[in-house]
Amino acid sequence: MNALDETSISVDAAIAIVGVGLIGGSLAAALKKRGHRGEIIGVGRSAARLAAAQRAGIIDSSTTQLAEAARRASLLVFCTPVDLIAAGVREAAPHCAPGTLITDAGSVKGRLCEELEGELPKEVHFVGSHPLAGSHHQGFEHADPGLYEGRICVVTPTAGSSAIAVKRIAGFWKSVGMRVVEMSPTEHDQALARTSHLPHVVAAALASMLDSSLDQFAASGFRDTTRIAAGDPDLWTAIFLHNAGQLQQSLKEFQTKIAALQSAIARGDQQALRDLLTTAKNNRDRLHRTADH
Amino acid sequence: MNALDETSISVDAAIAIVGVGLIGGSLAAALKKRGHRGEIIGVGRSAARLAAAQRAGIIDSSTTQLAEAARRASLLVFCTPVDLIAAGVREAAPHCAPGTLITDAGSVKGRLCEELEGELPKEVHFVGSHPLAGSHHQGFEHADPGLYEGRICVVTPTAGSSAIAVKRIAGFWKSVGMRVVEMSPTEHDQALARTSHLPHVVAAALASMLDSSLDQFAASGFRDTTRIAAGDPDLWTAIFLHNAGQLQQSLKEFQTKIAALQSAIARGDQQALRDLLTTAKNNRDRLHRTADH
Repeated sequence: MNALDETSISVDAAIAIVGVGLIGGSLAAALKKRGHRGEIIGVGRSAARLAAAQRAGIIDSSTTQLAEAARRASLLVFCTPVDLIAAGVREAAPHCAPGTLITDAGSVKGRLCEELEGELPKEVHFVGSHPLAGSHHQGFEHADPGLYEGRICVVTPTAGSSAIAVKRIAGFWKSVGMRVVEMSPTEHDQALARTSHLPHVVAAALASMLDSSLDQFAASGFRDTTRIAAGDPDLWTAIFLHNAGQLQQSLKEFQTKIAALQSAIARGDQQALRDLLTTAKNNRDRLHRTADH
Repeated sequence: MNALDETSISVDAAIAIVGVGLIGGSLAAALKKRGHRGEIIGVGRSAARLAAAQRAGIIDSSTTQLAEAARRASLLVFCTPVDLIAAGVREAAPHCAPGTLITDAGSVKGRLCEELEGELPKEVHFVGSHPLAGSHHQGFEHADPGLYEGRICVVTPTAGSSAIAVKRIAGFWKSVGMRVVEMSPTEHDQALARTSHLPHVVAAALASMLDSSLDQFAASGFRDTTRIAAGDPDLWTAIFLHNAGQLQQSLKEFQTKIAALQSAIARGDQQALRDLLTTAKNNRDRLHRTADH
């Protein structure tokens, strides 16, 4: 890494991607597409899967030894499930050269950033990230070099973060086409509880009510509303538990909204229903005006 | 109408479509595409809108006088909001020739079928229908002749329905490419409360929580889950109130599911969360295997 480049990661830097699934694989593909010249090292548990990703041209080299990748890379990006990131960073950090940057792509930031605060060697910098991009597909086979383009990446510095490290991590995500927003880990978790984690709880509750005799009556409305319930149960269990506090708060707010609708239905209150549905429609229409992706 | 044709509507029959919006317009377009030769009469409140639909070739003629259309048509299809159907059918029926069939495309069947039971002249037959097809678009300008193709149409006979009328109405929907399922109005409303009306309540509750500061964090998951909340508040207010009983029942079941998820999150119960999310995923994956439209 060019120590003088304070706003991004050098195009010649070796980058380790820990967890070469859809998210990690798409990141590797995006880097290559955008002209990254440095080695892209895939790190994972399955040598066979890593070899396949290498054969597919997604990564340049691979190892199942995190320490080995940590020694060689200027930047490590953890693309593993949220419950494995902190342990991975702790394991990797002692092997990193001074100046190494570490970030991640996890959906919950508060607990992770707290756990790592003050835990790493002084010259190794962790800054949390959450690129808001994904797909219902899994595995590097579905890697999409355009997955990150135009999407938001939340970078979550803490009081202890190095300003230069934050700038470089932000620059890194910009280099794959993302728009970077900086906010505190807690602000991030509050926002994502409402826009991502709560919708997942709600979609799962709805989908769990679908007796197979009802399948034929599940038209596009049901399918849209429950689409995310097809996500990986283990990944989402970890996300829910890592963001339990904020998620419980947003579940309470949701139940208040449901109760208002329910009461209006019970009372036969046309005007109240119209008002509630109009607020919802106005909010949803606002999103529609910004690209519906 | 050919009185000898007991399984459908003659291709030469005059058909009145009451309410020429997306649903009615698409029905007219589908009939024309599939070779219907009889006159397609559009009925509505706005002469200007009807004239525009006629100029667009969606309908052959039009009138704002329901009685006039009732006199000329062998089949009347009400494609108006659910709260206007019963009154429309009552208004039209006395003007219909003996043997005239009347159906509708409304999303709630129980209250409508009850209200009309025994209310119509003997020789005029109403049989309720609900074609499970739609779009977030509105207006005949978005009429799609393929809207009904391959979709389910629920036809809801009652004890008092003429068997021949039911067969013909079923045949009519089949003639525009639909797969017909017969069930009682109550069974229909129970099923659709779960697969359509409840998801709409839930999507609206979620969307109503979206403060504009959160818009940038609303990625594809939020957008999918709340897409239907952009639907017309008046239409959905009427649907909710017409199916209030079944909807309240399904809201109770939904709240039980939410409470189970909430309690598992509060307890930090990984296994319980995994089990709940796995049930949801299995149900959703089952839908995915049948075309995801």
